[in-house]
Amino acid sequence: MAAPTTFSGEVWAELRLADARDVPHIHSLIHQMAEFELLTDLFAATHELLASTLFPTPQPAPFASFTALILDFSPSPVPSSADTVGSRRLDLSASPLADPEAAAFPSPRGGGRVTAGFVICFPNYSTFLAKPGLYVEDIFVRAPWRRRGLGRMMLSAVAGRAAEIGMGRVEWCVLDWNQNAIDFYEGMGAEVFKQWRICRLTGAALDKYKGAGGSQGEEEDAGGKAE
Amino acid sequence: MAAPTTFSGEVWAELRLADARDVPHIHSLIHQMAEFELLTDLFAATHELLASTLFPTPQPAPFASFTALILDFSPSPVPSSADTVGSRRLDLSASPLADPEAAAFPSPRGGGRVTAGFVICFPNYSTFLAKPGLYVEDIFVRAPWRRRGLGRMMLSAVAGRAAEIGMGRVEWCVLDWNQNAIDFYEGMGAEVFKQWRICRLTGAALDKYKGAGGSQGEEEDAGGKAE
Repeated sequence: MAAPTTFSGEVWAELRLADARDVPHIHSLIHQMAEFELLTDLFAATHELLASTLFPTPQPAPFASFTALILDFSPSPVPSSADTVGSRRLDLSASPLADPEAAAFPSPRGGGRVTAGFVICFPNYSTFLAKPGLYVEDIFVRAPWRRRGLGRMMLSAVAGRAAEIGMGRVEWCVLDWNQNAIDFYEGMGAEVFKQWRICRLTGAALDKYKGAGGSQGEEEDAGGKAE
Repeated sequence: MAAPTTFSGEVWAELRLADARDVPHIHSLIHQMAEFELLTDLFAATHELLASTLFPTPQPAPFASFTALILDFSPSPVPSSADTVGSRRLDLSASPLADPEAAAFPSPRGGGRVTAGFVICFPNYSTFLAKPGLYVEDIFVRAPWRRRGLGRMMLSAVAGRAAEIGMGRVEWCVLDWNQNAIDFYEGMGAEVFKQWRICRLTGAALDKYKGAGGSQGEEEDAGGKAE
């Protein structure tokens, strides 16, 4: 069922758990995100990798491991299901929304629904709380659907679910020059940590540590690390 | 078997997978870390919470979920086991090491071993790679054992294991004023991301989102979020 290119009147947003049928759209959305961030050179995701890492068999419980959520828009109200994490009615009467890509993003859930965004999150762990938290790796909304409050809806819904299942915190990253985003997150009640920096080993720099644990070798003259 | 307070000559370090017998020491080490970071007001870990979150039944595979590792020192060589992630011989002939807490940290693995540190890590996810990575939440070594290259041994061994099991990256955090640590990590091949900031919702600020996903309410006038 091809979706209309222009949405007007009321539409219904649902943030829901994804499943393997969503892999092609998740792949396209991640690629759009890479384009948006000018990082397509880092883009190495394939349908096969996404399917095997996000939707393994057996599938862990939602939020207990890597968890993908899909934002769908429907031209008619959608009853909540066990997969629903968040939902909202959007009134477009005053400002109809043109989505030139709508036909390319039919939701596999049918009913004329269109996929407009996704969330990837997974548990992290607070040693001080001795409790899991939730790390939100990505929240992405396709361009035509931005600036409609959907980022807030998605983050609120995910945070709400994390709180409801007893997680101690919800974390994500923001770029330090994106003051609009920082203000927005602080307005939502988040603390932005100014002093922490993320360190990353990847690619060849990581591969060189293969076998590093196996040596019974002599001590090196290494700088001490006392965290 | 009480451990000696002063170590001299050769000792053997083993970084190994922890199990539920290590919970009391993990708890004490986390508390020492909280003292070191002047964050004891955030310390809420209990033996029960640590046991249920780090050592659930059934226990997931190492590095597939929250994973605790213990650094033990042994007065005699320890053969590698399936639990061994890293090991090293330390020659203390030139500088004997006084560990006033040694008697309080007997390793549950016996043999006169002393527990001197721990690592907590867990998988994270790179959407661009469509692959799991490893996030190192904590690396901690008790004070007397610092500045002997053990931080490097622990991080190298963990990174090596992550690379060996096909993870795409290893990440951790550092404080931006800790230039020694930054230099050390960069020397290990890590990239330190200057522009990212961590955002966190916790406590009451998080709890207020309970139920946030359930509303089919009217749109709010929310600032757009376009990541």
